[in-house]
Amino acid sequence: MELQLSQLARSAASATTEHDSRLPIQRDLPHPSSNPPSTTMPSDPPKQKSKVLTSNPYKTRSSPFYRHIAQSTGPCNLVTTAGQIGIRPDGSVPSDPVEQIQQALTNLKNCLEAAGADVTDIMKLTYYIVDFDHTNPQQRVPILAFLGDHRPATTLVPVPKLALPGIMFEIEATAAVPQHATEKVDVVVVGAGLSGLQAAVDLQKAGLRVKVLEARDRVGGKTWSQVAQGSVCDIGAAWINDTNQSKMFGLAQRYKLDLITQNTQGNIIVDEGVGNHKVHPYGDLLADADDKEDIDDIVRVRNIFESTCQQIDISKPVESGIALRKDLDNITFEDWIRSLGCREHAVNALTIGARAMLGVEPRDMSALYFLDYCKAGGGYMLMRSDCKDGGQYLRVTEGTQSFSRGLAAELAPGALVLQSPVRSIEQRGGGVRVVSARGTFEASRVIVSVPTPLYSEIAFDPPLPAEKVAMASSTRLGDYCKMIVFYAKPWWREQGFCGLTQSCHGPFAVTRDTSVDADNHYSLTCFVVGQPARDWILLPPAERQKAILSQITRIFGPFAKVDEPIDIVEQIWQNEQWSQGCPCPVMGPGMLTKYEDVIRAPTGRVHFVGTETAFEWKGYMEGAVRSGERGAQEVLLTLNRAKL
Amino acid sequence: MELQLSQLARSAASATTEHDSRLPIQRDLPHPSSNPPSTTMPSDPPKQKSKVLTSNPYKTRSSPFYRHIAQSTGPCNLVTTAGQIGIRPDGSVPSDPVEQIQQALTNLKNCLEAAGADVTDIMKLTYYIVDFDHTNPQQRVPILAFLGDHRPATTLVPVPKLALPGIMFEIEATAAVPQHATEKVDVVVVGAGLSGLQAAVDLQKAGLRVKVLEARDRVGGKTWSQVAQGSVCDIGAAWINDTNQSKMFGLAQRYKLDLITQNTQGNIIVDEGVGNHKVHPYGDLLADADDKEDIDDIVRVRNIFESTCQQIDISKPVESGIALRKDLDNITFEDWIRSLGCREHAVNALTIGARAMLGVEPRDMSALYFLDYCKAGGGYMLMRSDCKDGGQYLRVTEGTQSFSRGLAAELAPGALVLQSPVRSIEQRGGGVRVVSARGTFEASRVIVSVPTPLYSEIAFDPPLPAEKVAMASSTRLGDYCKMIVFYAKPWWREQGFCGLTQSCHGPFAVTRDTSVDADNHYSLTCFVVGQPARDWILLPPAERQKAILSQITRIFGPFAKVDEPIDIVEQIWQNEQWSQGCPCPVMGPGMLTKYEDVIRAPTGRVHFVGTETAFEWKGYMEGAVRSGERGAQEVLLTLNRAKL
Repeated sequence: MELQLSQLARSAASATTEHDSRLPIQRDLPHPSSNPPSTTMPSDPPKQKSKVLTSNPYKTRSSPFYRHIAQSTGPCNLVTTAGQIGIRPDGSVPSDPVEQIQQALTNLKNCLEAAGADVTDIMKLTYYIVDFDHTNPQQRVPILAFLGDHRPATTLVPVPKLALPGIMFEIEATAAVPQHATEKVDVVVVGAGLSGLQAAVDLQKAGLRVKVLEARDRVGGKTWSQVAQGSVCDIGAAWINDTNQSKMFGLAQRYKLDLITQNTQGNIIVDEGVGNHKVHPYGDLLADADDKEDIDDIVRVRNIFESTCQQIDISKPVESGIALRKDLDNITFEDWIRSLGCREHAVNALTIGARAMLGVEPRDMSALYFLDYCKAGGGYMLMRSDCKDGGQYLRVTEGTQSFSRGLAAELAPGALVLQSPVRSIEQRGGGVRVVSARGTFEASRVIVSVPTPLYSEIAFDPPLPAEKVAMASSTRLGDYCKMIVFYAKPWWREQGFCGLTQSCHGPFAVTRDTSVDADNHYSLTCFVVGQPARDWILLPPAERQKAILSQITRIFGPFAKVDEPIDIVEQIWQNEQWSQGCPCPVMGPGMLTKYEDVIRAPTGRVHFVGTETAFEWKGYMEGAVRSGERGAQEVLLTLNRAKL
Repeated sequence: MELQLSQLARSAASATTEHDSRLPIQRDLPHPSSNPPSTTMPSDPPKQKSKVLTSNPYKTRSSPFYRHIAQSTGPCNLVTTAGQIGIRPDGSVPSDPVEQIQQALTNLKNCLEAAGADVTDIMKLTYYIVDFDHTNPQQRVPILAFLGDHRPATTLVPVPKLALPGIMFEIEATAAVPQHATEKVDVVVVGAGLSGLQAAVDLQKAGLRVKVLEARDRVGGKTWSQVAQGSVCDIGAAWINDTNQSKMFGLAQRYKLDLITQNTQGNIIVDEGVGNHKVHPYGDLLADADDKEDIDDIVRVRNIFESTCQQIDISKPVESGIALRKDLDNITFEDWIRSLGCREHAVNALTIGARAMLGVEPRDMSALYFLDYCKAGGGYMLMRSDCKDGGQYLRVTEGTQSFSRGLAAELAPGALVLQSPVRSIEQRGGGVRVVSARGTFEASRVIVSVPTPLYSEIAFDPPLPAEKVAMASSTRLGDYCKMIVFYAKPWWREQGFCGLTQSCHGPFAVTRDTSVDADNHYSLTCFVVGQPARDWILLPPAERQKAILSQITRIFGPFAKVDEPIDIVEQIWQNEQWSQGCPCPVMGPGMLTKYEDVIRAPTGRVHFVGTETAFEWKGYMEGAVRSGERGAQEVLLTLNRAKL
């Protein structure tokens, strides 16, 4: 019975996820394919079974929409929510009743996720409906979609009004989250993204008992691969290379993953504003007679940037920054490039770079921070390159989440606990006590791998040092969204384009070809990043799609016949409760100088990893894995177990 | 504080039981006496104490109807219910508001019982009332009757309407069910009826640690004795004998129970339809000149039935059936007796027998099944007899539940857990894990003693074999009700009747004298069984009583002055969540051939007992106890502990 509920839970959860992230642009679009991809992706680690048993008593009229009884059947913690209404994060309320109900359910889902509760953990739902009409029960379809096959005990309460005018639906839940028995291990790792998993695997190899606590119902953090159109697409991190990203290439070999060389055959399009598009082969910067000066300026500034970048010592960027020019950390990247006397086109080109790399504007980060960030990936030119040795050279047929799933599969059975956000980390006497949504674990050491801005969600006792708190609260993840647009055929290639475009004038800054030819899967991934993303995510879902498709037509239209899409997958990383953005927390002016070392400094028995703490390939999967290795090494050294 | 709550709980629970099963026929009837009976009945085993503590805070206005705070005070599982409305199982809704409230409370009680929760485990009640008038709080009396002395935290919510038109009251509960710590024993026994208890006592005697999990708040299953009119009456199984029911007579001696010989002094009345009643001394079949042919036909068919019955080998009924006439299991009992060319009176006589013995119609069971069933009790004539060696020879002054309570009292302290319906039985590796509403227990072996149709309420993992599931789902318990009518004096005896009547023309098929003269307790028990019961239970309570009293007057009236009753106790066995009928699951045509051995076959480490699995006195207490002994022996053999 429990097993059955758990399996249903997973299908319910994935259905809900699809509902959120995959928005068919019009009703007559084919439904997203559920065919398995031709290549095998390692399977998800299992979620904990729900301990909630629902039933109907003997001789009582039953209903298809709820059960009369729900009971917890083992050690559980209780979760209750406030009544959730259909209000959006921006404070607006849909006027359509069904949309209002759906928004209330989205808000309820967020509450449950924040508490580490699964839909199948719900025991009781109570909903309050204004002017309820039993002949037109509008709540049923959205609630059944939300519940999947789970049927909690339920009460529907018709009410004359609710707490705010215009609100016609409110829903509250009681849930029981199963608890693991308290366990003593050597190391607790908080977070099962690449950095946490790599640390856990290294520690386990050294003979330590490890427990990995992950807030989400999946592993992988910002690696997240979804099945769509008979193939796998990456809605998070997507590229590696096989040279200077040796860790990732090593994992690809270890897990026998199939790698795809990024398509750079054909022209790129640079959108320089209304009616002004430049077309040139990938890698060139061809100028017309009338914009030679702009191109020369871009090349000049880029060269200054690159050569400054190459002078940074990533092990001590502040010191190298001072050696170069001491206020590099005290000014924004935008101020710095403008100080070079460059023209608007050069600013635009570097703005696109900042957005695409970090999801921020040049004004949001210190010059030194961005220089160091680029140097961590070999330099600006290498990091932005789609070619050999570049940041976007190889994709993974099975999806990059396969790296995370592969690492997770190396862990001992039971070492990984999903849906278990950590509430507190208490250092007492000779050990650390970690309280999570699904149990309390005691350890000699703890490795925290969550992004720095999320440290504030964990109650550290004793508190983290003031400078650690200041560092964490001064970092911010980028505004980073992907819209992956699927087509029946790669129309851009057939018309001489590689799929790469750059634009400073629309929601997306960059597109890239993300097809998997072996699966007949053809797609363009549009990167909606930085300031344009902050505006774009406020649009209703249909408007967001429309804006992207319009921009594709605007950019490609003058040169090629643009096909109709067959499917769309959308991912807005700042809507992710446990990421709050992507790819990497960014530092504003002055922060690097203050916190260069603070970011990696352990606090007592608590160590910190994560891609933002890496020296090399910060913000990339490579950086995450390297930071995980470093964290494991730190712990082993303190426990005298390191293989020196 | 907890002890106090627990004591309150028990009085509350018994009050609720009385409310359901004892229905005064008119307001001026004396209230059922609460004098203790003159003979002592072994006391009930204790229920687990509630862990819910209710209180009022300092300086807050208190109410006699609820408390402001309820808290759980130990390990508990949570139970939530859907809002319960006053809808009957047949979908109808009482128009009277108080009846609606009472029906809603009955539905809530069913939910709690199904979850293993006691009224005293309720932490919170919320009720929603349409058009609530605070000057006329109609909910108070029924809710206080439901709660007994327990006062949970409570919220009353006036609402403009509820989810369905016509519904004016809805109530939901949150309860906390205390949990025993997980424990490892040798054998878990599911069910504390006679079969389960006998098995447990035998295993304990052999030195094994036993845990008995009972869904109800009492032991005894279909033995259930209640105090009424200063004496004990049996609303379930009632008779034993002291010869061929050696196990029961042995238990009666062991527990020093006082036995009453069934009264057969005087005439019986046979109701053969309107204005046609035959009166003759018990044991004779006297005929008038005008019905000699009918009586001869009854005797002829009865003799064929008895002689066929005596040729059945109860250890292999199918084989003996084949030897007799191979399609005996493929036709119904009704088809078989009709194939003997008998007249309507003979069919009626055997119909009364089938109803009184099994609560079914002759068309509901295979001929071979009923022949074997009767042979198991010595043959048709012996089984139906109220005399020495017969099925209805001796009653028990202390009530037959004393057998169950006596066995329960022999168990080690803590070995019995009441109100603990079993949810799942998981066989893993070398043991079995049994999850119940009040705790999880691990064992080497499990004995399941619940009636076969209730197997489907337990999640077996791995599932039961397909043929076991098919057997269980093809059996059905009889429609079996008792209405015990109390009188100030035994008016029937005084007018020459023994109290036995037989009728094919009214709600009841049989009456018997169930007086306890030593207690000045005089009653007739009316057996409402088979098809007439199916119609009768749909009547409102007052109508049910009226129908019974009318039939008594109709049958006795032509021969005797019928007194007014002083009290009535009613028991409808199909309303019992954990019995779903009485006395024994019955098999239709073809089932015995398929499942003759399946019914007793163990599945891995799980064994099966229960009166329906007995060879001798199937459906009787004797069969239950014998099956329990067999189950214990099976387990001991597998554990090599049997005393051979």
